[in-house]
Amino acid sequence: MAMQNIFDNETFFEGYRKLRENKINANTVFEIPTLFSLLPDLHGKTVLDLGCGFGEHCIEYVKMGAEHVTGIDISEKMLEVARRENSDPKIEYLMMPMEDLATLNLKADVVISSLSLHYVQDFSGVIKAVHALLADDGLLVFSQENPLSTCHSGGDRWTRDANGNKLYLNLKDYSVEGERYSTWFVDNVQKYHRMFSTIVNTLIEAGFCIEKMIEPLPDKALLAKYPQFKDSSFKSDFLIIRARKTA
Amino acid sequence: MAMQNIFDNETFFEGYRKLRENKINANTVFEIPTLFSLLPDLHGKTVLDLGCGFGEHCIEYVKMGAEHVTGIDISEKMLEVARRENSDPKIEYLMMPMEDLATLNLKADVVISSLSLHYVQDFSGVIKAVHALLADDGLLVFSQENPLSTCHSGGDRWTRDANGNKLYLNLKDYSVEGERYSTWFVDNVQKYHRMFSTIVNTLIEAGFCIEKMIEPLPDKALLAKYPQFKDSSFKSDFLIIRARKTA
Repeated sequence: MAMQNIFDNETFFEGYRKLRENKINANTVFEIPTLFSLLPDLHGKTVLDLGCGFGEHCIEYVKMGAEHVTGIDISEKMLEVARRENSDPKIEYLMMPMEDLATLNLKADVVISSLSLHYVQDFSGVIKAVHALLADDGLLVFSQENPLSTCHSGGDRWTRDANGNKLYLNLKDYSVEGERYSTWFVDNVQKYHRMFSTIVNTLIEAGFCIEKMIEPLPDKALLAKYPQFKDSSFKSDFLIIRARKTA
Repeated sequence: MAMQNIFDNETFFEGYRKLRENKINANTVFEIPTLFSLLPDLHGKTVLDLGCGFGEHCIEYVKMGAEHVTGIDISEKMLEVARRENSDPKIEYLMMPMEDLATLNLKADVVISSLSLHYVQDFSGVIKAVHALLADDGLLVFSQENPLSTCHSGGDRWTRDANGNKLYLNLKDYSVEGERYSTWFVDNVQKYHRMFSTIVNTLIEAGFCIEKMIEPLPDKALLAKYPQFKDSSFKSDFLIIRARKTA
C-alpha cells in the first residue's frame, strides 16, 4: 500500500478531532506530559515539529520561548486548522510528508514529534534526515505508540473473562516488523511496527546517543483519580525517547 | 524472599547441566553467537565475567587473547565444575554474588555477563558497580532474558489452538516490575522483571552510552535447518546489549 494520508479522510478526521477535544485521555495524561518533560529550555531555539497536526504543540513551543517553529504535516486538513487556530508570526506550517524531510532547508536545534513516527515506513531514512538538519548537540524528542501496541496484527487484541475484564494482551508477531492495519475511526489505518531494539539501533546508527527512554505509566494518585487507566499494568501505550546528536 | 542461589539446588543443577549438554538450543543458536558478536578484540584485555557458571565462556575469552579473566558466580557447585573443566593460569574463579561487586578489587577493560542479570534484584546497584570498576571507555556486554519473557507472572504463558500450536503469548504485567517466580527444573526459580526502558535508563544514568541492542532471531536459513525455533516470531527469548562507559 502506498503512503497513507489517513488524516485527510473525513470520517477519521472528525473522529480524531473529537478524541482530541476529550481532555482526559491517554494522550493528555501520559504522552504529552512525558514528552514535554523531556524537552530542553526552548528559549531562542529553532524547533521542528514532525507531524504537527492541529499545531497545538507548535503554539506551546512558542510560549516556551522558541524563536522559530516549523510544523510539518502530511494532512492539509489538519494544517488548515493549525493555521486558523494556532498561528503565530514565529510559526511556519508546511504540508510535507516526513519522508521528504531531506528537502527541507532548515537547521534546527530541537526536533520534536508526537505520535507520528509509527506512521512512517522508512524510519531509518527519516531519522537520518533529522540528524542531518539538527545542529551539533541538537536534540530529538519523540513519542510513538509502544512496540507492544504496534505489533498487533489483527485478531483479538485481548483475552477477557466472562465479565469483559482484560486477562491478557494477546501478543503475537512482535518479532515480525513492518506494516500493520488497524481500525481506528475507519478501517485500514496503516502503521509500522518496529521492535524496541530496532528503534534504539536506528537512532544509534544515525549518530544519536539515547539520553532517556520512557514507557509512561500512571502513578497511584493518578490511578485513584482516573481508574479507567488501570489496564496500563499490561503495558504502557507509549514509548518516548530523547536522543542527542553526538556523531 | 532473600537472594536466591538456585544453581546450588541439586535438581536444578542436574537439569541445567543436561540442558547445557544439548548443543542445539536457544542459547547456542541465538544468545551465545550474538553476545560474542558484540565483544571487542580481547587481546591483552582484563575481562570480568558476571555469573560465569561452568566457566565455558571464561576459557573462550582466554583463547580470544584476554590477558586476565575473572569469573564470579554465586554457586560453589558451578565453580567446582569451572575449576575442574575450564581452568587456566589466566583465569581466576571467585564465589561472589554480583551484589557484592563493589568489594572486588579489580580494574577491567571489558565486563561480560551471559544470562545472569535477570537474577539480580538491585540491577542499578550492580550496573553502578560495573561502571566503577571499568576502565575509561570500557565496555559492558551482556545478555538477559527478554523483558517479554521476564514479565510473565504465573498462569498460562500461551494460548494454544486445539492442536497445541501457539496462537498468542499471554502478555500481562509487563509494566509491573519486580520479582517473578517460574518453574525451570524446580519450582520457584526467582527472577526480576524490568521493562526495556528501565534497563536502558539504568545504563544511561550510571554513565553508559548504549552502542547496540539486539533481540536475536533466527534467519530463514536457520529456520529451515531448525524448525523448532519458528515460535520466535512471537518474540526473541533474549535481549543483548553493548554499552560503553562514557561519563
